[in-house]
Amino acid sequence: MRAPMSQSPVIILVRPQMGENIGAAARAMLNFGLTELRLVAPRDGWPNPKAVAMASGAAGRVLDRARVFDTLDAALEGVSLSFATTARGRELTKPVYTPASAAAVARGAEAGRAAFVFGPERAGLENDDIARASAIITVPVNPEFPSLNLAQAVLLVGYEWGQGRLPPEPAPTLRRPPGEIAADGVEIAHLADHYEQKLTEAGYFFPETKAANMRLNLRNLWSRMALTRADVQVFHGMLRQLTRRPRVDP
Amino acid sequence: MRAPMSQSPVIILVRPQMGENIGAAARAMLNFGLTELRLVAPRDGWPNPKAVAMASGAAGRVLDRARVFDTLDAALEGVSLSFATTARGRELTKPVYTPASAAAVARGAEAGRAAFVFGPERAGLENDDIARASAIITVPVNPEFPSLNLAQAVLLVGYEWGQGRLPPEPAPTLRRPPGEIAADGVEIAHLADHYEQKLTEAGYFFPETKAANMRLNLRNLWSRMALTRADVQVFHGMLRQLTRRPRVDP
Repeated sequence: MRAPMSQSPVIILVRPQMGENIGAAARAMLNFGLTELRLVAPRDGWPNPKAVAMASGAAGRVLDRARVFDTLDAALEGVSLSFATTARGRELTKPVYTPASAAAVARGAEAGRAAFVFGPERAGLENDDIARASAIITVPVNPEFPSLNLAQAVLLVGYEWGQGRLPPEPAPTLRRPPGEIAADGVEIAHLADHYEQKLTEAGYFFPETKAANMRLNLRNLWSRMALTRADVQVFHGMLRQLTRRPRVDP
Repeated sequence: MRAPMSQSPVIILVRPQMGENIGAAARAMLNFGLTELRLVAPRDGWPNPKAVAMASGAAGRVLDRARVFDTLDAALEGVSLSFATTARGRELTKPVYTPASAAAVARGAEAGRAAFVFGPERAGLENDDIARASAIITVPVNPEFPSLNLAQAVLLVGYEWGQGRLPPEPAPTLRRPPGEIAADGVEIAHLADHYEQKLTEAGYFFPETKAANMRLNLRNLWSRMALTRADVQVFHGMLRQLTRRPRVDP
């Protein structure tokens, strides 16, 4: 039977070495609602107390339910679409996905149950493992510093899986006239300080019990407005004008 | 002056506690090409040997160049668009972005120099910090298990920044007829074993020096084809037919 679409992907760790990393991977999974972990020949056997120490609470239950297999072939039970995460494997003819496009394919109606497969910490997946997968995932990282660890790789793949299940987000926009020079944080802080000082002198922050919150909201307002450098000068000018000593009229 | 678009965002860690986490954040940054780190009042002072131990090599140079400030206001020097990463802060009126939409806005022409601001490990950013930012980033995580640590939050924001700088990816597709039941990994492995056995008997894997690679490529081929369960039976049937003992014709 083809798996129903509500089934989340399986995470398969092939020959993981450190128990701590298995625990950290379980935590990374659960951050994005992934709960089915399969282990292929974990180096230090199973269960592993160091994994448990790293993943307490709800993530500990992911470990409790983890299944252990002798081979990757066996661990692919019920999986019809498997992605091998690797920076190598280019010598094998195989479609190469990013985490984002792999997650999109895994969500596709024709995919069946999907698995994301991760190799041992030090060496990664071997070609013999990669050859058993439907496709490859490569995380686009800085080629001069590709240092993702096992749990980070699981985190990014889980994140992309979780992302695509959210309703599309209406893009919020910051309001600022085009072509204007944006004020920087220091200029905004000076403006906020200027107003706060003058308003304090004017007795604005009253009653005392609400003053802290009034200050906070005002600080927030200045930061939120996406002011230009010219705007900041306008606000300073208005304040100076409003607070200058009144001339004595005849 | 508005920053040119090639400038990468700044990462600001506010009151970070553990040196190890500062080092891990530097590594996470560099994975996606982010190199400018600013620290606001790090708990254990600066430089911090534990940070250095965690981030050797190229990531160590990110730490070497890190600048330290007394306040978040000061650390926002030259920054005109700042995102406070927090799961809270909803009591402040402020646009709320995901890492993906924040990265898109940060890349926008009118944005100027952007900064992503992260709070202390335990408590996260305070409202006084959030009030100083242009907007909020909230990472969409499993509400029942939101356990991202500091370096993981930096990793996801850096990842999204890096993502958007890649050329658009042509979506590779797996070929499988619609409505068919996908074969699972165990069925594919049996099929591969069946062929490998019969081909071995037939002397196919020759010469010996190339045999291992021929086996690997064949294994890869079976996994790549996105076979249906019916396809698998067809391949088994062909093989059986091809390898049955010849009848002695009269």
